[in-house]
Order: sequence, then structure tokens, then C-alpha cells
Amino acid sequence: MIKTPYILFLGDAPDMLAAKVAIGIRDWRPENAIGQYRMEGCKADLGLTDMTLADAKAAGAKTLVIGVANRGGVISQAWKKVLVGALEEGFDLASGLHNLLRDEPDLVAVAEACGRSLHDVRVPEVEYPIANGEKRSGKRCLAVGTDCSVGKMYTALAMDAEMRAREMKCTFRPTGQTGILITGDGVPLDAVVADFMAGSVEWLTPDNDPDHWDLIEGQGSLFHVSYSGVTMALIHGGQPDALILCHEPTRDHMRGLPGYELPTLETLRDTALPLARVANPACKVVGVAVNTQNLSEVEARAYVEKVENEIGLPTTDPYRFGASKLVDALAQV
Amino acid sequence: MIKTPYILFLGDAPDMLAAKVAIGIRDWRPENAIGQYRMEGCKADLGLTDMTLADAKAAGAKTLVIGVANRGGVISQAWKKVLVGALEEGFDLASGLHNLLRDEPDLVAVAEACGRSLHDVRVPEVEYPIANGEKRSGKRCLAVGTDCSVGKMYTALAMDAEMRAREMKCTFRPTGQTGILITGDGVPLDAVVADFMAGSVEWLTPDNDPDHWDLIEGQGSLFHVSYSGVTMALIHGGQPDALILCHEPTRDHMRGLPGYELPTLETLRDTALPLARVANPACKVVGVAVNTQNLSEVEARAYVEKVENEIGLPTTDPYRFGASKLVDALAQV
Repeated sequence: MIKTPYILFLGDAPDMLAAKVAIGIRDWRPENAIGQYRMEGCKADLGLTDMTLADAKAAGAKTLVIGVANRGGVISQAWKKVLVGALEEGFDLASGLHNLLRDEPDLVAVAEACGRSLHDVRVPEVEYPIANGEKRSGKRCLAVGTDCSVGKMYTALAMDAEMRAREMKCTFRPTGQTGILITGDGVPLDAVVADFMAGSVEWLTPDNDPDHWDLIEGQGSLFHVSYSGVTMALIHGGQPDALILCHEPTRDHMRGLPGYELPTLETLRDTALPLARVANPACKVVGVAVNTQNLSEVEARAYVEKVENEIGLPTTDPYRFGASKLVDALAQV
Repeated sequence: MIKTPYILFLGDAPDMLAAKVAIGIRDWRPENAIGQYRMEGCKADLGLTDMTLADAKAAGAKTLVIGVANRGGVISQAWKKVLVGALEEGFDLASGLHNLLRDEPDLVAVAEACGRSLHDVRVPEVEYPIANGEKRSGKRCLAVGTDCSVGKMYTALAMDAEMRAREMKCTFRPTGQTGILITGDGVPLDAVVADFMAGSVEWLTPDNDPDHWDLIEGQGSLFHVSYSGVTMALIHGGQPDALILCHEPTRDHMRGLPGYELPTLETLRDTALPLARVANPACKVVGVAVNTQNLSEVEARAYVEKVENEIGLPTTDPYRFGASKLVDALAQV
């Protein structure tokens, strides 16, 4: 569990794209983003208050989150100076970088001396159980995709935002490093040992109030041969009551797999639903989320309408047009 | 890669059941089993020559394999004496125990001093790649089950034995610790990190001669919610050309999951085949292996015949009645 709120470290980001993680935090948990820390030459700007470490401390920030990708996979000396200063100022550090904070002896030594924590959210911090398949109370929704990176996380976050606005009981349950940094908690599922994958998802989505929804972040795709095992563990460990089908309509092959075609939304539905019903016989497919970022507004509206007519399920781009249609459908379950 | 042949360490096994791993080695790779080492009070006997460490050395054994489960999850001092002696005699050690050889400081120190290797086959020794889904040459057969522990490993090993007898080109590809100890090589799939599962199976079953068959050891079941992700990774990473359906007909629920019913063989076929065709559109279901160990001979023959008539696929218990029917079917693919 990462202590919130955060000061978002943007470092020397070469552009906005490099600050994807920080943007996610600002967009979906603005209450966690007290301000931004930018180094000389930083080309990203989240529109948050620029703060020194002392400013951030005074404003109540507890953790400095590395909200930017580093260049060349190395934590530079320029970054180190700020990170060491942050530990000394009393902040914990949190990072989703491939190269781990805990592998940097200077950061480890200073954190220890200052009594601070280093959170590498790519690495599981919990000993997860083996899944037991027992029925849990409360309800769960899982986004499954025709491919990887089709907007499953944004779909869950947009539904979470809409449900909060309606004062429905819900919790976004992250299963990847960006989601974990956004909320401060979750399971880095792609780094969990095979035998414990489904158990980690059960652990993440425990018993809850009967009218509470967990919105589980999806991973991979049943049709993506590199990661389908992770998706399968989410479908069985998550025991979803509701599935949302996610799709990006402009791909000509599966991400990173030339020669592999995307399945249709109908094939995804007919594959995922029977598998989900093994763990939860009441599971239903309740809607479709289309990622229209590569379409114009007119194209996007036409595509969404076409899908909705063909598959007969509430369909929208929840990021572009809002998630109310999907939440309406969920409220019926 | 564990050096063969082996001296099989039976320790102070309380009964034959405890020596399951050693029995597997004796039954399926008798050429790897030079002899057995039994301590005082050992109640297991494989019918192999009893040997001292010096005898085994003289007979050419390279590795002492712990072929027995230990009591209480502790490597006892009585065992330690033999294991240390074996290292000093020039043997490597190999083990599938939960508690690792590498976690015993005395064994580590002696192994280092003697220049010997400690193989804990529960722990991956390789950095596996992420699966790339590229089509590989050669053919692959995977056993998939209605449940865990229904005889998938024995099915693959029985087919391997029959194919060797016919001088067909084939390799048994272990994915669990018993299989790895039997052949000396493989992937401990349940211990691989999620992102690399399918890649480890690709690594295990590389390009080969067009008429060569890999017989891949199955794990878990698509219908077992604790382990289905591992099965999924085998189906996509393995790119099977042929599936064998495995079933144990006397279970009243999924192993370890009260309340979960086993699927029918037809449901298994209709679930596994479309998923397998994502990675290999030419994949076929070629036969059924029934584990009849809990049935009388008459019951077993009747059950096998009934299944064969119902599902219309070559069906047998390959351990009890031989695997020729399944190998005949494979030879048609």
C-alpha cells in the first residue's frame, strides 16, 4: 500500500507521452496529485502546481511517484539527486520502472537511514495464496479484450468515475503497474508466479457488500498467445458477474504478433463467457467498450452505433463519450 | 540439464507411495536408473540394485536424485549425511522437494568446495523469453484434461514409449518437477513468472524435423480455476498440432474444489480446440486417454468402449492398455 497523496516526479521528460503514468494519476485520482516536480529541460507539463520538495511536504504529500519513463533504462545521477533529497525530506518513493529502486544501493541506504519505503510496483510485495474458487459476496466486473492494449484499464477507470459520481459502491482493482500507481494498491499480475495468479486475483477482490462492485483491470487477451494465461487467471480468479468486451477497430494484427488476426467481438463473447461461467455461472456480457482514439468523432459515433446494432449490447467509447451507458447496464445485473 | 544416469535416493521412505518420483524414473527412463540408495528403515524398494555411493560411482552414476518425499518438509540430518557424502563422492544432487537444496547452507558450502551442482527442479534455471507466436517446424502433441491429476503426464510418457518402440522421432517435454527429474530437463511451469509462461513453452519445444513430435506434458485444466492460466499458456505456447483429451471417470468434483463439477469430454474438446487453433489453425483432437486406475479391468474396458462410441475418437487407458491406439491416431496427423 503506497501512502497518498503524491508529488508527481516528471524528471526531464522529453515529451508528454513519457509522462503517461503521471497523466493517469492526474486524470483518474486528482485528489492523489498534490503537485508536479519538474527538472530543468522537462518538456511535460500536467498543469499542476510546480513544487519544490519542501513545498510538497508542506502541502501534505507522502510519496514521490516517478510518473515518467526513464531514458535507456538507467536511473540517472540527475534523477538520483532529487530522489535522495526526497527520501531525506521524508517522502517514500514509488516507481513502475523496469529497473528497480531496490537495485540502487544508494537509494536503499538512504531509505534505510531515513526510515522510508521504496515501492517497486512491478514486483509483488505479498505472498499470494493458491485460488480456492470459493464464491465471494459482492459483485465483480472484468474488461476483456480482443487484443492487448485496447483500453481495458481506461474502461474500468471511466466506469469507476461514473459510479462514484452516482454514489454507487465500487472499487477499481488494478492489476498492472500504472493502475497500482494511480490508486496506491493492487496486484502486478504479470510478475506473479504461475501457480498463484488466480489466487492473487481472489486476494485482490475479497468478500464485499452485496451491492458493491469491484472493477477489475483486465490484462492481455484470450486471443493473444503471449499473455492469454494471465487473462485466463483473471477470468477464473475474478469470478466476474459482468464482462465488458473491449476493442480497438483499427488494428490489422494482434499487438506484436504479425500474422495473428484479431477475433470479432462475437468470437470474444462466445469464448470468454463460457470460461467465466466455470467460476460464476451467473456471469453475463453487459456491454462493449470501443477505443476510438484513431477515429474522427463522426467515424467513432458511426462505428459505435454499428457495433451496438450488430451485437445487441450497450456500446460506447467510455473515455471519449462517458461510461454512463455501461454503468446503466451494470446496474441491471 | 541434469547429468544422467542417476543413483536414486529413497532415504527412509515410509512406503512405496512416498517414492513416486523414483518409480517414475524407473518406469519411464530405466536407462537413467543405475541403482537405488536406501537408508536404514526404508520401506520402499524399486527392485533395483542396492548400492553404496562408491558402488554407484563405479557404475557410472553422475547425479544422486532425491526420489522420495521428505517428512515434515525438512531435510533431516540423517539425509544430510548421505547428501554431503554424495557431493564429496563427486555426484551432483537433484531434487523436486518444496524446501530447496540451495537453502541449506551446509549443502551449498560442500557443493561449492567440491565443484558440484545442486538442481532444485521446482525453480526455473533459465530466463525465458516472452512468447512470439512464430510458427515452428516439427509437430507437437499436448494432453489436456477435464481436471488436474487425471494422467496427462503418464499419457505423454506412454505415447513417448510407444513411439520410441516404433522408432518414430519424438521427445517427451516435461513441464513439472517429476517429469523434469525423469528426463533431466524441462520447464517447471507452475513456478514461471506469468509474463513468461507461454514463452517458456515455446523455448521448451523449438523448431525440429518435420516428422518429429514433441509430447508436451500438460498441466492443470482449462476448467480448474486455480491453474487454468497455466493450461492456457501451454495451449498457446505449445502450438499443438494434436490434442489428447484426458479424463478420470470417478471424480465427483474438481480436485480440491468442492462444488465444481468436471466438464464432459465433449465440452473439453469444444473449449480447448478453438483456443488451440488461435496459435495453430491446423490443430486436431486425435484421441482420448482415460485414467481407469479406480475401475476394475472389466469396468475399464466397458468405459473406454462407451467413450469411444460416444465421442467418436480413438480411446484407451494408455498406461493400462498401451498407447498404440493413440500413436496410430497421431501418425495420421
